[in-house]
Amino acid sequence: MKPVRFSVVGVEHLHAFLQAGLLVEAGAELVSYFSPEGDLLAGFSQMFPQARRVPDQREIMLDDTISLVVCAARPDLRAATAVEAMQHGKDVFVDKPGATTLGQLEELRRVQSITGCRWVVFFSERLTSPATIRAGELVGAGAIGEPVHTTGLGPHQLTSSPRPEWFFDPAHTGGILADLASHQVDQFLHFTGARDARVQAALVANWNRPDHRDFEDFGEVLLSSAGATGWAQVDWLSPDGLGTWGDVRLTILGTEGTIEIRKNIDLAGRSGGDHLLIVDDRTVRHVDCTGVELPFASSLLADVLDRTETAMTTDHAFRATELALQAQAQATRLGLLSGQS
Amino acid sequence: MKPVRFSVVGVEHLHAFLQAGLLVEAGAELVSYFSPEGDLLAGFSQMFPQARRVPDQREIMLDDTISLVVCAARPDLRAATAVEAMQHGKDVFVDKPGATTLGQLEELRRVQSITGCRWVVFFSERLTSPATIRAGELVGAGAIGEPVHTTGLGPHQLTSSPRPEWFFDPAHTGGILADLASHQVDQFLHFTGARDARVQAALVANWNRPDHRDFEDFGEVLLSSAGATGWAQVDWLSPDGLGTWGDVRLTILGTEGTIEIRKNIDLAGRSGGDHLLIVDDRTVRHVDCTGVELPFASSLLADVLDRTETAMTTDHAFRATELALQAQAQATRLGLLSGQS
Repeated sequence: MKPVRFSVVGVEHLHAFLQAGLLVEAGAELVSYFSPEGDLLAGFSQMFPQARRVPDQREIMLDDTISLVVCAARPDLRAATAVEAMQHGKDVFVDKPGATTLGQLEELRRVQSITGCRWVVFFSERLTSPATIRAGELVGAGAIGEPVHTTGLGPHQLTSSPRPEWFFDPAHTGGILADLASHQVDQFLHFTGARDARVQAALVANWNRPDHRDFEDFGEVLLSSAGATGWAQVDWLSPDGLGTWGDVRLTILGTEGTIEIRKNIDLAGRSGGDHLLIVDDRTVRHVDCTGVELPFASSLLADVLDRTETAMTTDHAFRATELALQAQAQATRLGLLSGQS
Repeated sequence: MKPVRFSVVGVEHLHAFLQAGLLVEAGAELVSYFSPEGDLLAGFSQMFPQARRVPDQREIMLDDTISLVVCAARPDLRAATAVEAMQHGKDVFVDKPGATTLGQLEELRRVQSITGCRWVVFFSERLTSPATIRAGELVGAGAIGEPVHTTGLGPHQLTSSPRPEWFFDPAHTGGILADLASHQVDQFLHFTGARDARVQAALVANWNRPDHRDFEDFGEVLLSSAGATGWAQVDWLSPDGLGTWGDVRLTILGTEGTIEIRKNIDLAGRSGGDHLLIVDDRTVRHVDCTGVELPFASSLLADVLDRTETAMTTDHAFRATELALQAQAQATRLGLLSGQS
């Protein structure tokens, strides 16, 4: 079978490296990439010397041998790229957030429904986390009964790496709930099996960035479905002494037990990441997640070839993005944001 | 100085033992107790043989040598006892929830303002937790900058001990937010220094108790103040294998660091309870909380004698209770509760 040939449009987030790397490792062929000059391009060409940098993204769009477009452009530019790619019959694998406004999402849905292309969002906090994949297996096997709640914590360090100026402008990033909390919405829908949900409350704040008064350094969202609730906190307040970029966690509360995943660090505890702690009616266990396979990239490539939806349904990608954008749109504004429109 | 003489009205919750024990240990004299016949009375008389059981609570109210009434009656009966005690010039130290309706709270406020008596609520998850007291010292010293968020987790085991029938009826308990989340509201106000707050969202659910369809086995509340937000999850879903009655935690997010308190258990980690984990700009530390003194009971007795408010201001006790009751009153009802009035 011939490998899936793909290109990258937009290398504005480090996720571009991860997205391309996952696909190459799963057997796809990285053909080319386009991006406006950016800080990350030198590293990208070094990491993927086999790929050709093209001067115009139309070259990618018009190449019929390319069936998949990966996008990690500036967030507000991603939807337009995805729309263009789908209009050229290409599937899309876009970094989160896949859209920064509800209007963009509507257009994506319209074009996707006409073209039948795949639109898959890179929810890395689930898809590339061995402990989270193992949690999915455990939940699926009934290890904690019916999931009724997810708690998603997505704290991030702001100061550990330099950020481009657009990073501080919600008009470009979509805002903290669109950007970061979309991971948590994805995990809520995935683990509770909810097809739909409602934003019960949402809020964003600027607590500690008087130098960037529009920047949202904190956000929360509370979701409910017919059978579960989900709460998420995301922020850019993680202290430098943490030792990793954020103490990201996910807890799944079931009717018969709980699973807690400490994705990046076991605070003042065991070394390394990927700590899965399960409590059931019998005991508390620390579950070893080494050796857990990440099926996402292989599934995505199979989907591109077979026109299936095993890696992520388009419906899920749209719904998770929509909920994050709805939360963002209706969020109460606190701290330095209060009083601003 | 003569010791404070106190009596107990209502021994319907195990907290009565803890409340009386704390006061006795701090030098107060337990004179008498009244309670309708209950499962806990035999143990109480055994633990406090010095106290006389009286057949009518009026005997306590009319005894002018008794200056403090402790109450751990059925929750919906506590406010009436407190009102009667204050009308007889006695201070009140009541188990949480101190009231089960906003109407009760209004009456408590009215009588308190006339009498000037103390009305103090036993928020044990803060007041009797060495790690939480240490956290207060650290926050007060600026160890994590300005606190901007508290995450309060109050999971509880339901099946580990038999429960009286009234326990399953929100008309008697006030509901899960009034009962359990009042701890978290207390801690939100205490740690963020907020004088007031708003309920952004609240919800309660019956996910797993078809045998008690009115029972709320899950609840969430999201609060905001001018300078901080607080989220709490409380439930009766903790699995039997946990090894303790609930993996109660509190996380305080500050502008310069974080503190996480694992009050009862360090899941699959260190033994014992009272784990305080602090992260600041330099490092991650597990802080030893042995030897931390719990000043609450001594402060309360001094307040009774000196008419001060060092242990807990009446304003704080009222505001924390009110927010929990407001959340309870406006909570969205999910699971088996949905569709019920």
